[in-house]
Amino acid sequence: MNRLLAHPVCIIGLGLIGGSLLRDLRAAGQPAFGFTRSCSGARSALSEGFDVSDDLDATLARAEEEQALIVLATPISAIDGILDKIVTLAPTCGITDVASVKAQVYDLVLKHGLAGRYVGSHPMAGTADSGWKASQEGLFRGAAWVITFDHAIDTSGAVSSAWVELWFDVARMIKLTGAEAIPSRVGHHDAAVARISHLPHLLAETQAIVGDNGGALALSLAAGSFRDGTRVAGTAPALVRGMCETNSAALIDCLDEAIELLTEARKGLAAKSPSIAELADAGYRSRIRYEARSGITAKKQDAHAATTSVSGRPVLRLQPGAPGWIRQLAHAESLGARIEVF
Amino acid sequence: MNRLLAHPVCIIGLGLIGGSLLRDLRAAGQPAFGFTRSCSGARSALSEGFDVSDDLDATLARAEEEQALIVLATPISAIDGILDKIVTLAPTCGITDVASVKAQVYDLVLKHGLAGRYVGSHPMAGTADSGWKASQEGLFRGAAWVITFDHAIDTSGAVSSAWVELWFDVARMIKLTGAEAIPSRVGHHDAAVARISHLPHLLAETQAIVGDNGGALALSLAAGSFRDGTRVAGTAPALVRGMCETNSAALIDCLDEAIELLTEARKGLAAKSPSIAELADAGYRSRIRYEARSGITAKKQDAHAATTSVSGRPVLRLQPGAPGWIRQLAHAESLGARIEVF
Repeated sequence: MNRLLAHPVCIIGLGLIGGSLLRDLRAAGQPAFGFTRSCSGARSALSEGFDVSDDLDATLARAEEEQALIVLATPISAIDGILDKIVTLAPTCGITDVASVKAQVYDLVLKHGLAGRYVGSHPMAGTADSGWKASQEGLFRGAAWVITFDHAIDTSGAVSSAWVELWFDVARMIKLTGAEAIPSRVGHHDAAVARISHLPHLLAETQAIVGDNGGALALSLAAGSFRDGTRVAGTAPALVRGMCETNSAALIDCLDEAIELLTEARKGLAAKSPSIAELADAGYRSRIRYEARSGITAKKQDAHAATTSVSGRPVLRLQPGAPGWIRQLAHAESLGARIEVF
Repeated sequence: MNRLLAHPVCIIGLGLIGGSLLRDLRAAGQPAFGFTRSCSGARSALSEGFDVSDDLDATLARAEEEQALIVLATPISAIDGILDKIVTLAPTCGITDVASVKAQVYDLVLKHGLAGRYVGSHPMAGTADSGWKASQEGLFRGAAWVITFDHAIDTSGAVSSAWVELWFDVARMIKLTGAEAIPSRVGHHDAAVARISHLPHLLAETQAIVGDNGGALALSLAAGSFRDGTRVAGTAPALVRGMCETNSAALIDCLDEAIELLTEARKGLAAKSPSIAELADAGYRSRIRYEARSGITAKKQDAHAATTSVSGRPVLRLQPGAPGWIRQLAHAESLGARIEVF
């Protein structure tokens, strides 16, 4: 059975991610409350019996009183201002966040002197929709959910017992949602998501435009490869910009690799005997490696079995605070392994 | 009810496409026979009661005797040699093909002086698998199936009644499979498929490689956007090369557009205030336009409803050979419309 956290949870921002988290926590019997600045969201949540408020200051004061774990689930642009308030209104609470980039958030945390009270996180789940109305129980089931540990590295492991307890609570919160906790440092996380989450958006948008440039005939002939290759171009541009523009350095590295591969392919196509052998072979090998790793095959994917299958990730068991646990986290990170805490 | 063709059908090559076509034709009650050079394919097809042979010369002689419509369903590399044989062994049969590029095939047809007996075609359907064992009834249902009409344009409409009848037969064959016949000239077809079928393969392969370069952590965090964006990188490299390398000129144009868009995005990301507004907005608009046109939405796609839904393509009814029918074909092409023949 999953264990509840040592503290109640206070979620700031009840959109798709924050709202779905609140639903999962209630379903697991975990005490949790939240704040949303959306009046309609607050009304809806209240009508479903959730413990929510549209008063940020009061919510933070309550968090301090109940020693809650504060989960920042707002857009990144709002985080700086909320940390200002936390410093005065909730000066001893533990803090996590669910933002899709981690370096920018960690910089703000450091600026506010909160590193010893912060553990970052990022669930790799979502839909094209947003807002409380899009939130749903079970959204995170089986998804990867990154949990950071930079403070332990920065202090060479000399962390407080309160930070270890905070880290344990974040890991337990992830577990309660049915997600898989993957440890990663901030920088490694941002580099990885640039490759497998942010670049796909840029390529999908590019493909959508080039297809559209072909006019009615091209769109009429478009089949599965175009449909799947452009799917995430249907994500609201503001969300895509939020992810990509706050992770620009890592994303530029990936873009450069992509542009170089495509430029090489173009050269190959312009040759007297056109050839894309190198790209086609390497791309195929990479996809097969990914399929093997994730336990999906092209056929299984068609049946959308990937989302319900047993995890293909290696697992590492560890006890937060035990000797060597930080080394274990770094090891899990290098394997992309999920962790089980005990 | 669908009408049978005026002639039997002779399919040369019984892989995924040729084999699936043979199955559909038999199911529709349409007389059809075929050739495969694969002994195991021939054995399997025979054991299922199909009328197939592994003797190409004898099959072509029979086609001539029965005045069959010959369907070239071999790899493009084999078509030159088969046309040589058709000139001597089946000198009066009508010919079509199902290759994924049309200019290269049409050049061979012209070289053999067969333009007056040829109508090209291309079904926009397939799976990652190949060979007779992968063939299946119903593979083409609802798919776009291009039918060319260059000979009518090249002769300013002064085509023989035999060519009109041939064109009618190819259109009826498409209808028997449940596919939708989309008229297009060879050059327009190749330009369109470069955009919506060949470029997606290059982008998927590029994405797969850049993701893989991120190692275990990146692959572990990969979710839906990476999975869908790399799906067609799992296609056998030989098939991808066959499509892309025989359509290099059109594909280079698309690649240049894609590389330019990505290079602009890179510039935007490297700016002091990183921005990908232009790409994100244009890509989103393009995807929404495609969704509206094809009648799918992100939600419907998730449920794989797109493949079973009613066609989103406009329809034009026409009578082959009637006054103005070539103008109607060009009009349908410009709309990406499907045609109904009567």
